[in-house]
Amino acid sequence: MTKDNTNDLTHFSDSGRARMVDVSEKATTERVAVARGTILMNKDTLKRIRSNEIKKGDVLTVANISAVMATKRTSDMIPMCHPLPLTGVEVDFEDGTESDGRASIEVTVTAKCVGQTGVEMEALSGASTALLTIYDMCKAIDRGMTITNIELIEKRGGKSGHWLRSKEV
Amino acid sequence: MTKDNTNDLTHFSDSGRARMVDVSEKATTERVAVARGTILMNKDTLKRIRSNEIKKGDVLTVANISAVMATKRTSDMIPMCHPLPLTGVEVDFEDGTESDGRASIEVTVTAKCVGQTGVEMEALSGASTALLTIYDMCKAIDRGMTITNIELIEKRGGKSGHWLRSKEV
Amino acid sequence: MTKDNTNDLTHFSDSGRARMVDVSEKATTERVAVARGTILMNKDTLKRIRSNEIKKGDVLTVANISAVMATKRTSDMIPMCHPLPLTGVEVDFEDGTESDGRASIEVTVTAKCVGQTGVEMEALSGASTALLTIYDMCKAIDRGMTITNIELIEKRGGKSGHWLRSKEV
Amino acid sequence: MTKDNTNDLTHFSDSGRARMVDVSEKATTERVAVARGTILMNKDTLKRIRSNEIKKGDVLTVANISAVMATKRTSDMIPMCHPLPLTGVEVDFEDGTESDGRASIEVTVTAKCVGQTGVEMEALSGASTALLTIYDMCKAIDRGMTITNIELIEKRGGKSGHWLRSKEV
Amino acid sequence: MTKDNTNDLTHFSDSGRARMVDVSEKATTERVAVARGTILMNKDTLKRIRSNEIKKGDVLTVANISAVMATKRTSDMIPMCHPLPLTGVEVDFEDGTESDGRASIEVTVTAKCVGQTGVEMEALSGASTALLTIYDMCKAIDRGMTITNIELIEKRGGKSGHWLRSKEV
Amino acid sequence: MTKDNTNDLTHFSDSGRARMVDVSEKATTERVAVARGTILMNKDTLKRIRSNEIKKGDVLTVANISAVMATKRTSDMIPMCHPLPLTGVEVDFEDGTESDGRASIEVTVTAKCVGQTGVEMEALSGASTALLTIYDMCKAIDRGMTITNIELIEKRGGKSGHWLRSKEV
Repeated sequence: MTKDNTNDLTHFSDSGRARMVDVSEKATTERVAVARGTILMNKDTLKRIRSNEIKKGDVLTVANISAVMATKRTSDMIPMCHPLPLTGVEVDFEDGTESDGRASIEVTVTAKCVGQTGVEMEALSGASTALLTIYDMCKAIDRGMTITNIELIEKRGGKSGHWLRSKEV
Repeated sequence: MTKDNTNDLTHFSDSGRARMVDVSEKATTERVAVARGTILMNKDTLKRIRSNEIKKGDVLTVANISAVMATKRTSDMIPMCHPLPLTGVEVDFEDGTESDGRASIEVTVTAKCVGQTGVEMEALSGASTALLTIYDMCKAIDRGMTITNIELIEKRGGKSGHWLRSKEV
Repeated sequence: MTKDNTNDLTHFSDSGRARMVDVSEKATTERVAVARGTILMNKDTLKRIRSNEIKKGDVLTVANISAVMATKRTSDMIPMCHPLPLTGVEVDFEDGTESDGRASIEVTVTAKCVGQTGVEMEALSGASTALLTIYDMCKAIDRGMTITNIELIEKRGGKSGHWLRSKEV
Repeated sequence: MTKDNTNDLTHFSDSGRARMVDVSEKATTERVAVARGTILMNKDTLKRIRSNEIKKGDVLTVANISAVMATKRTSDMIPMCHPLPLTGVEVDFEDGTESDGRASIEVTVTAKCVGQTGVEMEALSGASTALLTIYDMCKAIDRGMTITNIELIEKRGGKSGHWLRSKEV
Repeated sequence: MTKDNTNDLTHFSDSGRARMVDVSEKATTERVAVARGTILMNKDTLKRIRSNEIKKGDVLTVANISAVMATKRTSDMIPMCHPLPLTGVEVDFEDGTESDGRASIEVTVTAKCVGQTGVEMEALSGASTALLTIYDMCKAIDRGMTITNIELIEKRGGKSGHWLRSKEV
Repeated sequence: MTKDNTNDLTHFSDSGRARMVDVSEKATTERVAVARGTILMNKDTLKRIRSNEIKKGDVLTVANISAVMATKRTSDMIPMCHPLPLTGVEVDFEDGTESDGRASIEVTVTAKCVGQTGVEMEALSGASTALLTIYDMCKAIDRGMTITNIELIEKRGGKSGHWLRSKEV
């Protein structure tokens, strides 16, 4: 899929040191990224999360908010990431059932900015943090939960244009 | 597996509001948690990561450091997490080949503290951040990488004692 | 009320420089602080906040979570504040009607730690941040909201013992 | 005053989840916001603050600096707030006497940016943090201080144009 | 050298309060700053650092990464510094021998942004943090290390144009 | 001076990865560290700093506060540093004249904690940040300032006991 001819990982300088890649010359355009991820859990855990949702506070709202906040902290957490003034973030959750009988919640995070580099890491960090927050809030009843399938789904804007995850990846 | 009888998620108060659970009465003991996670990638991507390693900077060292730093920021990122004075963190990486032909790198993070609550979230956040950092450093050559199988492997200390992930989870 | 005879503000050194007061010799005890604050708004704004609450996300849950997270960042924001490992935080909200006909929401934040100095600033910062978050989420429909009456209500633990706000302050 | 016809709070997505509102399409203009707030205290507390001011460090300078720093951390603290590259911040303090005989200090914070959304929250967070810092530095001698009347005074720039707080709000 | 006629330090307002200088009217241009600094150490310490470098992790890579991350946190640490969206950062290290017989490592940090004010503080903070990190990693074997000669080497962009450190400063 | 026989830098694991050294078994004792550093400047710059000091805000108070706040952020900035609950921080400044005719300001930072590892990095980070802040506030009038001689002066507490910098280092 990624048949480019780059000989080196761009995050390293000529002397081999890790660097923040210079994007000063790149165009300022609107950029969008969508990332997804899933947490697997006992069926009973999902039931409790969903039954709590009618209360004033609930697991998924805490996870939702942690995801938005995490997108804003991405360049603090990922060493070579550029700081970016995000212009919009949305988060959504969907239930599922896995082939092994466990229940699941899938999170989707969409991040936007008008800037010189993409927001893939922001969307991915948001998804990852939402899932970690679900783990945190439910770990007292289900320590064995698994976070899985965090991946980029779509990317728009910038020189590389539109990228859409193909199903067979 | 988690057949306890807790009726409510502990992270909510009597009035249903999200709270940081009160651990004031819990004993101060040494606590250890081990978490693991994997990133799947094209075989060529792994080859480049490994061939870069002999240089002065390399992808896995950046990921290693991001993991240690992330463990220290866990309570900043996960809303209901207690702040904890970590006493030690170790990170390790191992290569693998997946059944679908993709290559993989597995990260293991061990976190320790002497405190009133466990360090599971610290270990899990460290693992998650290491994998996001690998994604960031290699995304220019392999946008389709997948982060998967982030889970708690072991937990020691505190009232619940020793917990070890059973293979069949 | 505060008729003590302290001659100097303790946050300054002998040479007059701002300092973090030395608490090394103070006893490690359980400490609790309760703070309260209010935001005044148009009656219609309160109605919309309350009608939104049945949705999956709602203004008060976002404010609730921002308060818990703010208590953990207090020593980052208040220059001479000691870093403290909080052991518990709870947040609650109550509606009211003010004498001038505006509606109001009152937030109460309770913070706990086992440490060498009190958690008043943590509780107060939590209350203040919850109210700022309500302002942020509703400012598009009510820019004239007023945050008011942020004060310490109660304090337990430490040398100064139990302090309870008297009504006639 | 706020007679707009918005039917929903904009900080929620169609599926009811809390989101960072998309401002990608908004114009980049110079934006200014002025916020104000007051802390009430014993007369003796104000006297001590003012007599300390001739020393090398003083309460109001610490509060001044905390306000500038807080404006820069606003999007870290307020969950749905956009990150904004501030271009200028000014802080000022004025003494007063309240009708109930307590003394007061009023803080005014002016924040500026060239961006796609306003800086009201930055100005309000700055004012709130300045007052919390005064509380922190003086709490040893006056635990009963009250933070009050934090509100937006003026706002310029952006689609909604010039907004000035009317006296009778 | 600094024969300008500025009568006042620009970081203070007319009323004498510390402020973030208003740069709203300044042009958005590409800006570059280069800073340098040195750490002096026992010869044996340098030998161990260099012999470790062939391992998977090494002192200079940790210092390298800490420098890049510190440039992104500059406005969080330096009170009156403007937040700036950095577009590129590079770090390099060089060994030396000092006249007093101690060994040395010199770090050079280059920071870039497209913005309304310069990136000198970002480059200087990066250099300073790299040297502190070297100290931290080696202090168990050489507590007497000295950090020295942190200075701006070059600055490009903005109204003041190109500035190059003259040798005889 | 540092004639110990440590064969390896302790900040690396057996597999050569950077780690946060495990201090779980170390005794909790009171620990103190004193660090110092100097900034060299034009004589006129020092004169302006000192003449500004009678105003309500002044360069050294901003530097003082930045130093206290930086000590609290040390483990966020220095990758392998342990998070530590500081119990006290003091900062002082002294003028000087250097042999090359430049003026100087020397900062001294004293940090304390009751913990399992020392506070050298906190004191050094505080000193370094104070000097960077002085640079930032005066750079408009003296871009050629040099930060120099940041070093540990004294260290008490912990297994290694009392360490005092010898003059001839």
